[in-house]
Amino acid sequence: MALDTIQTLLHSESARNGITARGWVRTKRDSKSCSFLEISDGSCFKGLQVVVDAALPTAELLPRILTGASVEVVGDLVASPAAGQKWEMQAAELCLLGEADATYPLQKKGHTPEFLRTIAHLRPRTNLFGSVFRVRSKMAYAVHRFFQERGFFYVHTPIITSSDCEGAGEMFQVTTLKPNTPTKPEQDFFGRPTYLTVSGQLQGEAFACALGNIYTFGPTFRAENSNTTRHAAEFWMIEPEMAFYDLTADMTLAEEHVRYLVQAMFDECPDELEFFNKFIDKGLIDRLKQTLAKPFERISYTDAVDILLKSGRNFEHPVVWGDSLQTEHERYLAEEHVKGPVTIFNYPKDIKPFYMRQNDDGKTAAAMDLLVPGIGEIVGGSQREERLDVLEALMSKQGLDPENYSWYADLRRYGSVPHAGYGLGFERLLMFVTGVPNIRDVIPFARTPGHAAY
Amino acid sequence: MALDTIQTLLHSESARNGITARGWVRTKRDSKSCSFLEISDGSCFKGLQVVVDAALPTAELLPRILTGASVEVVGDLVASPAAGQKWEMQAAELCLLGEADATYPLQKKGHTPEFLRTIAHLRPRTNLFGSVFRVRSKMAYAVHRFFQERGFFYVHTPIITSSDCEGAGEMFQVTTLKPNTPTKPEQDFFGRPTYLTVSGQLQGEAFACALGNIYTFGPTFRAENSNTTRHAAEFWMIEPEMAFYDLTADMTLAEEHVRYLVQAMFDECPDELEFFNKFIDKGLIDRLKQTLAKPFERISYTDAVDILLKSGRNFEHPVVWGDSLQTEHERYLAEEHVKGPVTIFNYPKDIKPFYMRQNDDGKTAAAMDLLVPGIGEIVGGSQREERLDVLEALMSKQGLDPENYSWYADLRRYGSVPHAGYGLGFERLLMFVTGVPNIRDVIPFARTPGHAAY
Repeated sequence: MALDTIQTLLHSESARNGITARGWVRTKRDSKSCSFLEISDGSCFKGLQVVVDAALPTAELLPRILTGASVEVVGDLVASPAAGQKWEMQAAELCLLGEADATYPLQKKGHTPEFLRTIAHLRPRTNLFGSVFRVRSKMAYAVHRFFQERGFFYVHTPIITSSDCEGAGEMFQVTTLKPNTPTKPEQDFFGRPTYLTVSGQLQGEAFACALGNIYTFGPTFRAENSNTTRHAAEFWMIEPEMAFYDLTADMTLAEEHVRYLVQAMFDECPDELEFFNKFIDKGLIDRLKQTLAKPFERISYTDAVDILLKSGRNFEHPVVWGDSLQTEHERYLAEEHVKGPVTIFNYPKDIKPFYMRQNDDGKTAAAMDLLVPGIGEIVGGSQREERLDVLEALMSKQGLDPENYSWYADLRRYGSVPHAGYGLGFERLLMFVTGVPNIRDVIPFARTPGHAAY
Repeated sequence: MALDTIQTLLHSESARNGITARGWVRTKRDSKSCSFLEISDGSCFKGLQVVVDAALPTAELLPRILTGASVEVVGDLVASPAAGQKWEMQAAELCLLGEADATYPLQKKGHTPEFLRTIAHLRPRTNLFGSVFRVRSKMAYAVHRFFQERGFFYVHTPIITSSDCEGAGEMFQVTTLKPNTPTKPEQDFFGRPTYLTVSGQLQGEAFACALGNIYTFGPTFRAENSNTTRHAAEFWMIEPEMAFYDLTADMTLAEEHVRYLVQAMFDECPDELEFFNKFIDKGLIDRLKQTLAKPFERISYTDAVDILLKSGRNFEHPVVWGDSLQTEHERYLAEEHVKGPVTIFNYPKDIKPFYMRQNDDGKTAAAMDLLVPGIGEIVGGSQREERLDVLEALMSKQGLDPENYSWYADLRRYGSVPHAGYGLGFERLLMFVTGVPNIRDVIPFARTPGHAAY
């Protein structure tokens, strides 16, 4: 019963008579004896050229068929004499499903991304956003495939939570209490204050300590008032967590994962990749090829600090052992020093959250960040502290209420195992594989301070 | 670098020397000359039997190895003399990774689901919940596979929203405003009141009207104070939306979809299925086989009302044309009349939301529900109203502010196309394929009134 899509028609093995094509008109060109419609149904990057003979009875509809109109065409799929396309369609009957008049905002001329964000419900009909969101879908599926092929289990960690993971950032409150009304937390839906999750990691660890290898892939939230090209209030995170993995196995998996996704981009989205490389980021294909060319380098944080200090660069933020690496440092390491992806590991323990495993040197934690050119950090992870006494000391040092984390401590109290995991920001990944520079343009309906339309 | 899991070891083609197995101890049996440990790492239903010779130096650890302890064993994979297992492991060296003392809540004896819900961080270590959550992962992947193989695109519709879809239910508010403090909506993070989504359908339609065939698969929320076995405040929904589909094509896809998922259950989770059939729901396998045996029946709402009226049954809720079907009616139709899944279509228009397409009879809308034995409604969908004037009249009749839906009307203003979609509740599906009767037991960390721990 499946209808033919333009994707299936363009990949036809042979000419076919009596087919039906449906889609939206991208362009219309008239010649003396016929008109050429390019129609797209979003199923693939390319459109289908439809030739409408002026003598056709239904050709009288043509004046009403403008850019954006939807049509259904019955006719034959025939070899195309035009360059760059194998097939075109010779129309026998044309049906106008829905008109689009001159007020249709997506006329042929180019539009700024800023304007297109104001019509987020229509922008996926453009070449750029159609491509972005096809890639988003293919990459999401590739994420699942990567893990499922390796025997990992997908876990839906909760979105509404009463714990705040790691104090990772400002949280949104979730409530059914009326604003501006005297209320008590006990009266709220869950009988206590609840928030939108900032990470599924802690709950993911509980499942890794039962099912072995698991991953989450779901929305996470930050109520930070940041108006940058890299921050959104709602974004999707991938968080695998592996029992019996140490930091080295963790880094290896993260590197395989990023390479797998880049390879999927080449294999499954070649037309979109070419388009992005031509119109959005001319260095894109080269940079992605670099990612596949050789194993990623690994540099300890301490060595990375040395490299930065010896670089002779005048960084805006000074380089000091014990401080976090800033984006400018990360980009120097990936783009100039290594000229490709690089994993930095063993960070100073005092800048890392309580759950990261303490190394024997007394100074560092078994943490890692994977940095890629053009983006900086794309993956952050660590081996988790599996020793109950060490964990409890760290929680107490960071002022956490042991009561709130007693279930998390239970994972160490009963059959504790070495384990590790990481987080991969899905939008960061999409920006990396498409070259699209603003996170607002890789999310269907982006949420940023002041913006929650739709 | 991947570590051997018990799943890979149990599926080994041949005996292997010098392997390492890791997992949690399920049971320990001592005989005179050796001990038998059954260890599980969650990678599959079955555990691995490890034989530890009493003469082994590390056998002295055995007294400390209780149920729930984590161990690493080096040794050989050898053919097992025991029935029901092809391989067992002969230990050469035993390492106790993490002890579990007598306070470990998951001792051998059975526990009630109610008790296990209070230890949601440990319950996936049990046979039942390990099975449920492996099935949850496999089914989620099968959902993606079903759509991706058919060229559908996965769309992440927003979780935080300023629109309320269809007035589908009570909503949670999302805010950064302090409670018990005088505030104005403009001061909130998004500059207006925002909520957790109850459905991604409307935004999904925008993408279907650009990319053709799409689906969502994400969390949705209802702030309803229902304490039933079938309601949760947070659950995952699958919502496909197809351009150029009418109601018949919509019903066909939904039926294929349910059959595909049931088939995946037989193909990918045979051990879990057998377990559920034996311990949770003795009719499960028969019921699922029924689903695959023949095409699903389709009955119009009007005919269904006739069937119910003629059934001679004394229903608690009277059967009246124009009213919604109640669960008792749905179950009668599926379980007793059809004895299998059945799709009911063309419901009275006045009990359906504004976006459903009005039929020409002036009385019904092109809506459908797919009912399955044991559950009732598992899928609900419709063809969408694509005629701008009809849609606007319906919105006005239902008292909706056209301003809030102008973007949705745009989809009909510019290149409108016939389209249809449906929603499949993922937890309902899991209850159907596992026989687990309470929604709290198919969600990793369930959220219900008063419950948001973890």
